Amino acid sequence: MQVNDVVAYIQADRDRFLADLKEWLAIPSISGDPAHADDVRTSAGWLAEYLRGQGFPTVEVWETPGLPAVFAEWPAEDPGAPSVVVYGHHDVQPVEPLEEWETEPFKPLEKGDRLIGRGASDDKGQVFFHTLGIRAGLAASGRQAPPVTIKLLVEGEEESGSAHFAELLRTHRDRLACDAVVISDTTMWSADVPSMCTGMRGLAEAEVTLRGPESDLHSGSFGGAVPNPLHAMASLLAALHDDDGRVTLPGFYDDVVPLTDEERELFARLPFDEAEWLRTAGNSRAAHGEKGYTTLERVWARPTAEINGMWGGHTGPGGKTIVPREAHAKISFRLAAGQDPRKVQEQFREWVAERTPAGVEAEVRTPHGGVRPCFSPIDSPGVKAARRAMERAFGTDVLFTREGGSGPEADLADILDAPLVFVAVGLDGDRIHAPNEKVEIPLLLKGAEAAAYLWEELATALR
Amino acid sequence: MQVNDVVAYIQADRDRFLADLKEWLAIPSISGDPAHADDVRTSAGWLAEYLRGQGFPTVEVWETPGLPAVFAEWPAEDPGAPSVVVYGHHDVQPVEPLEEWETEPFKPLEKGDRLIGRGASDDKGQVFFHTLGIRAGLAASGRQAPPVTIKLLVEGEEESGSAHFAELLRTHRDRLACDAVVISDTTMWSADVPSMCTGMRGLAEAEVTLRGPESDLHSGSFGGAVPNPLHAMASLLAALHDDDGRVTLPGFYDDVVPLTDEERELFARLPFDEAEWLRTAGNSRAAHGEKGYTTLERVWARPTAEINGMWGGHTGPGGKTIVPREAHAKISFRLAAGQDPRKVQEQFREWVAERTPAGVEAEVRTPHGGVRPCFSPIDSPGVKAARRAMERAFGTDVLFTREGGSGPEADLADILDAPLVFVAVGLDGDRIHAPNEKVEIPLLLKGAEAAAYLWEELATALR
Repeated sequence: MQVNDVVAYIQADRDRFLADLKEWLAIPSISGDPAHADDVRTSAGWLAEYLRGQGFPTVEVWETPGLPAVFAEWPAEDPGAPSVVVYGHHDVQPVEPLEEWETEPFKPLEKGDRLIGRGASDDKGQVFFHTLGIRAGLAASGRQAPPVTIKLLVEGEEESGSAHFAELLRTHRDRLACDAVVISDTTMWSADVPSMCTGMRGLAEAEVTLRGPESDLHSGSFGGAVPNPLHAMASLLAALHDDDGRVTLPGFYDDVVPLTDEERELFARLPFDEAEWLRTAGNSRAAHGEKGYTTLERVWARPTAEINGMWGGHTGPGGKTIVPREAHAKISFRLAAGQDPRKVQEQFREWVAERTPAGVEAEVRTPHGGVRPCFSPIDSPGVKAARRAMERAFGTDVLFTREGGSGPEADLADILDAPLVFVAVGLDGDRIHAPNEKVEIPLLLKGAEAAAYLWEELATALR
Repeated sequence: MQVNDVVAYIQADRDRFLADLKEWLAIPSISGDPAHADDVRTSAGWLAEYLRGQGFPTVEVWETPGLPAVFAEWPAEDPGAPSVVVYGHHDVQPVEPLEEWETEPFKPLEKGDRLIGRGASDDKGQVFFHTLGIRAGLAASGRQAPPVTIKLLVEGEEESGSAHFAELLRTHRDRLACDAVVISDTTMWSADVPSMCTGMRGLAEAEVTLRGPESDLHSGSFGGAVPNPLHAMASLLAALHDDDGRVTLPGFYDDVVPLTDEERELFARLPFDEAEWLRTAGNSRAAHGEKGYTTLERVWARPTAEINGMWGGHTGPGGKTIVPREAHAKISFRLAAGQDPRKVQEQFREWVAERTPAGVEAEVRTPHGGVRPCFSPIDSPGVKAARRAMERAFGTDVLFTREGGSGPEADLADILDAPLVFVAVGLDGDRIHAPNEKVEIPLLLKGAEAAAYLWEELATALR
């Protein structure tokens, strides 16, 4: 397969590719809004039909108790070739506030090098570059089937919490058996600095309630003489970090896979502008966090504890001089590679119990089991193969990032027991989940090119 | 004036006294409900007419921009005699929830020794015992005028915040000139343990807002690398008290008038049952507070800081993994004798500014100037005189309490520049502000008796 052939195919196919993508983007498949459930079904049907047209021998719409996923399989010519699951999703985020859109979210529009519309980057555009990549790879190689068995799995509930995704994976575990999972739902560093993600942080959530008196008390009659749950909450949560910004739960760091020197060195090669990063961080005024780590290391590879919400007592206008009966807080931990969300929830539960002052009763609820972190070392075969494919497409060094957020990708790694390989061309500036979502068309086409090379690289690496 | 004559008069007058009081209690003078504004006016008119009938040479309804007060003056025979303002109020609390009343709130009912109805204890009953006291005193002494000039001032907006009271006092400062202010709007320890209040705590309020990023941030992308305003709030407010439960604002205790050994010893003589007190404190599970002080000392005579409300980030159902943009807290300080609310607000403002971490912006708002504490030492002439009057009526030692709450009484002391003397016979169990408010009729009559002796005691003490 010659680079020139792949590039030529992609260039020639560009307009048809974009026209087809726009047709799909026009379907408002908002999974979080029950009013759009039928649209999510329409989106699944549209994709299934499209994939059949692309030549996938097997295409199925997989129902769940919620919204459907699409599964498509294209077996390798060689029955001994590796299998690879490609993961993406066809549902999209809500579009409010509508008045902030400069175009209509479901009337996708090309504007110079950009394609604007909900789902353009997250994630329909990135699912779609694989279809072009497969076509280009087959055309350039003259083969009738790819060098690995490709199993495309396109979820329909990612933007509403993937409630049924793990179950779907378990149900179809045999058919999804694979040697690697390619994830195309993330970003790279920038248009000029292509990069691959090697992992995502996990998530453990907890809600604490501290109870004092059975009813709000008059602070004149009782203030200063009974414990105030809000004070207890402030003291409790103030102790969640030590002076070095480290989380104080005993054992919290025990299972964390430490960053290697090589990965830290590669992170450091990324042209990171902290002032600019602070601007994207809602114009935050200062960086802050665990001592001994850079900002990128903190958000990508170190575990954290954040208070997401805290409330109690009088929160309306004016004053109300009470000792409130209860205080509440929602806390979430981002977990680094190696950590287990259930274990962290248990550590937190014990930590709260030990620190609850006399006269206050604590309840810790852990809403669900959390999300496991996922991580593929940079020297693992799948990551190395995908890096070569990316470097062939972009013609330059591909660096590494990680993802600070958490997603159902960890379920893929766990349930399918296969390493994750992130190949994606979204940008942080794509305004996903926000008005005016867009994707850079040249990057989508580079994604297609990388996808064209990916299968032969993986066929060799995973064999 | 013989005790026997006063007692005999009061006994003989009992039924008429109660019948008149019930007539007044039947007027639903709820100042907090605009629908009852006319009833508050009717109540003022009724009282004015009644006081004229009692022989007060001067009776006036004093209008305010809100609801009216009643002023009545009965000059002493001796033009050189002291003047005393008697403060009470004729407005009452709302009566909801109505279904919890066992009688109708504005159909006052005698049941054994109790008179049940809204306002029976707070405060119409306590204003009313003065009218009987004055009659009994005059009858027993055979005088035509009291031994001090009595200036009765009965407010109509106490239960709705006394919005115009300070202005009313300033407007009529000359006519209200006096040597002491008798307050009859509080409680005594119990029916068996008569007591006098010697002061009320002041109040300083503040609201803190801590601002981080300009918008909520995704905790996956930014968590652990920018300051979280909720963490900053927890750390800030956790530091509001030291390990001994003392407020940490520099200078906070500088102006506090310390408790004297004598007052502490008298407090200690009160039959205080901490377990029972904790039950009234919403079944609080433990006493708590400033080290080195008893529970009563803490709530009556020591300053405190309480978080009344705290909120920020996601407070609805479910999880939302954000670094929130803002954190808020409402804080109030109860102030002990000697403290100035504005000074405390300023101390708090400086304390917050010094402790705000890098990357977080703090704003402190101080909604109004606060309420000054008021305090009359137990060895001051007015308090000693009133204690003698109470002891003559009750035939037993009268002990001392203070009031942990704050009220417009402090304005009386400040604006009229006169010491306060609390003479009241309400009980903590009178269910004021709650359904089934009642007053103990024998205590009302004891109050009348004490009031009968009070004027001659004050005439001597204040001369």
